[in-house]
Amino acid sequence: MGGDEGLAVMLAGAALARSRWPGLTFLLVGDETAIRAGLLKHPNLATVSEIAHAPDVIGGSDKPAQAIRRAKTTSMGIAIDAVKTGKAGAAVSAGNTGALMAMAKLSLRTMPGIDRPALAALLPSLGSNDHVMLDLGANTECDTRNLVEFAVMGAAYARIAMGLERPRVRLLNIGTEDLKGTDEVRAAAALLRQATDLQMAFEGFVEGDKISTGDTDVVVTDGFSGNIALKTIEGTARFVTDLLKRSFRSSFRSKMGFLISRPATELLRTHLDPNNHNGAVFLGLNGVVVKSHGSASDKGVANAIGVAAKLVSNDITRRITDDLAHFTAYRALTAANAAAPKAANE
Amino acid sequence: MGGDEGLAVMLAGAALARSRWPGLTFLLVGDETAIRAGLLKHPNLATVSEIAHAPDVIGGSDKPAQAIRRAKTTSMGIAIDAVKTGKAGAAVSAGNTGALMAMAKLSLRTMPGIDRPALAALLPSLGSNDHVMLDLGANTECDTRNLVEFAVMGAAYARIAMGLERPRVRLLNIGTEDLKGTDEVRAAAALLRQATDLQMAFEGFVEGDKISTGDTDVVVTDGFSGNIALKTIEGTARFVTDLLKRSFRSSFRSKMGFLISRPATELLRTHLDPNNHNGAVFLGLNGVVVKSHGSASDKGVANAIGVAAKLVSNDITRRITDDLAHFTAYRALTAANAAAPKAANE
Repeated sequence: MGGDEGLAVMLAGAALARSRWPGLTFLLVGDETAIRAGLLKHPNLATVSEIAHAPDVIGGSDKPAQAIRRAKTTSMGIAIDAVKTGKAGAAVSAGNTGALMAMAKLSLRTMPGIDRPALAALLPSLGSNDHVMLDLGANTECDTRNLVEFAVMGAAYARIAMGLERPRVRLLNIGTEDLKGTDEVRAAAALLRQATDLQMAFEGFVEGDKISTGDTDVVVTDGFSGNIALKTIEGTARFVTDLLKRSFRSSFRSKMGFLISRPATELLRTHLDPNNHNGAVFLGLNGVVVKSHGSASDKGVANAIGVAAKLVSNDITRRITDDLAHFTAYRALTAANAAAPKAANE
Repeated sequence: MGGDEGLAVMLAGAALARSRWPGLTFLLVGDETAIRAGLLKHPNLATVSEIAHAPDVIGGSDKPAQAIRRAKTTSMGIAIDAVKTGKAGAAVSAGNTGALMAMAKLSLRTMPGIDRPALAALLPSLGSNDHVMLDLGANTECDTRNLVEFAVMGAAYARIAMGLERPRVRLLNIGTEDLKGTDEVRAAAALLRQATDLQMAFEGFVEGDKISTGDTDVVVTDGFSGNIALKTIEGTARFVTDLLKRSFRSSFRSKMGFLISRPATELLRTHLDPNNHNGAVFLGLNGVVVKSHGSASDKGVANAIGVAAKLVSNDITRRITDDLAHFTAYRALTAANAAAPKAANE
């Protein structure tokens, strides 16, 4: 029921996903009457779908604390519960991100051993594949352990999403020298340098100007910096393309050139189209929950559904658990933390 | 003596600045023999220049702690000292940023009332003028007071650099609602909302995707996020223009279109050329010190010199002092801090 376009684009996206990946089946959660009416347009989806009626919807401006009280009656809550009970393999929502995070965390709980879940996404790069960035805003402040866990979770995600054997992992920092950055970032780097037997290659720090060069497969940071970096990428891409449009409109000659080179600018547009990268994942929960952007098209929604399906069929949770179990230095850290526990798991 | 191109580009930049602003005079600090030889190419600069010989140079990889011990013999140290003694109005350097910051802070000291200086720069926007962003990396972690002082200093800079009467100031955050962000950011916002009688309009939070839209004149953040945002802007602008180049090369037709629309892409290049925005300022010191980018061209160096001259002739230090003196809520905060002092002014 979420997203700027509501039900219609979600159903169109599911129908597109169904034709791309014929093995998928769907549990459509929301207003039953509206869903039935919408499905008339998508007979190929109707044949592989069940409907779970939800009388209520979480609004875009509802606070997470209010939302979790309505878990049992809202489409968001019922969809997450279906993952918990095993009725669904994964939940995909285009609704309120803060509410989705809070409800997913409360219902599914964090994986054994993980302190906090993180929001991760695939972003375009100049290299031959995309790259993973996390955390994108789930945790405003992060300690060393959080950053280390994000690195391990991000590497597992990169192996599944991009088929890499040993993703190159770096911590986002304000310089590449060992002395740079906060205590947390430096301590996380020291620990990750000892993760030599995991299926990842920790390569130190990356600065903001090198995020998209294709030299890093997993960019790890706290949710404050990650959210700012992600949105700055979006904003700058729009800034440059807006400037380019203005420039092309600046003279008759430039307009002509634009028309002739349109295939090139279309290629650029496709590469930067956020729908091709839609689907942010909450990593570290006992179950897969994917956030589709509120303004995603049907193609974007299908992409988010594909991300969810890939994570489930490749058992992301088990991969993360296995990696953490093999990571000796990390286990020493968490054992020390357990001996002197923090106040509370947030 | 600093910068990737060394002396030649610094002298060419000074010569260009001299022809743009005929009132300027120069104290050239560095190897006297090399400067004399270089000046032969720039007779217009030679007539308004004095040379201060410096036998030593701070290297790009020298640590700040090592650099400050060589303040008396290095070009960087002698240039800053000239500001301290009043021999120069401002210092411009293309050298090691960390060393410059440390030496400037130690020699010039922070302004009365200011806890920490910040690094600020002018960045391009889609609006009718540039915008100021700070801190860009001088302070990895910032408290509420630091952020409030950065806002006041950034507003004073925007008034001088862009001739604005009441710059629109926003704190960089991961959302625009009051509840978003760290405690420090929220507390700084609460204080800045009370700055109603200053020559600035505090307008709340700005997210990463809105930094360059032209709706904000001063973007305020801690040095960690600010450095990441700045470099992410640089990296993304390069990423998009690289993609565009690749796209234009993708077919004969696109290449033709590119040639025809070259005036448009040249316009874009000019707008994004970092040389037009060169010159980052350390705000909050008893004296003006400007950092020119190591890879700046002569035009870039001239731009940095122009920034320095504008700040001196408009008495930035007095403007900041006046604003802080008028800011009742801020004075209440610092009075409370003075009653219960922090460990040390780092």
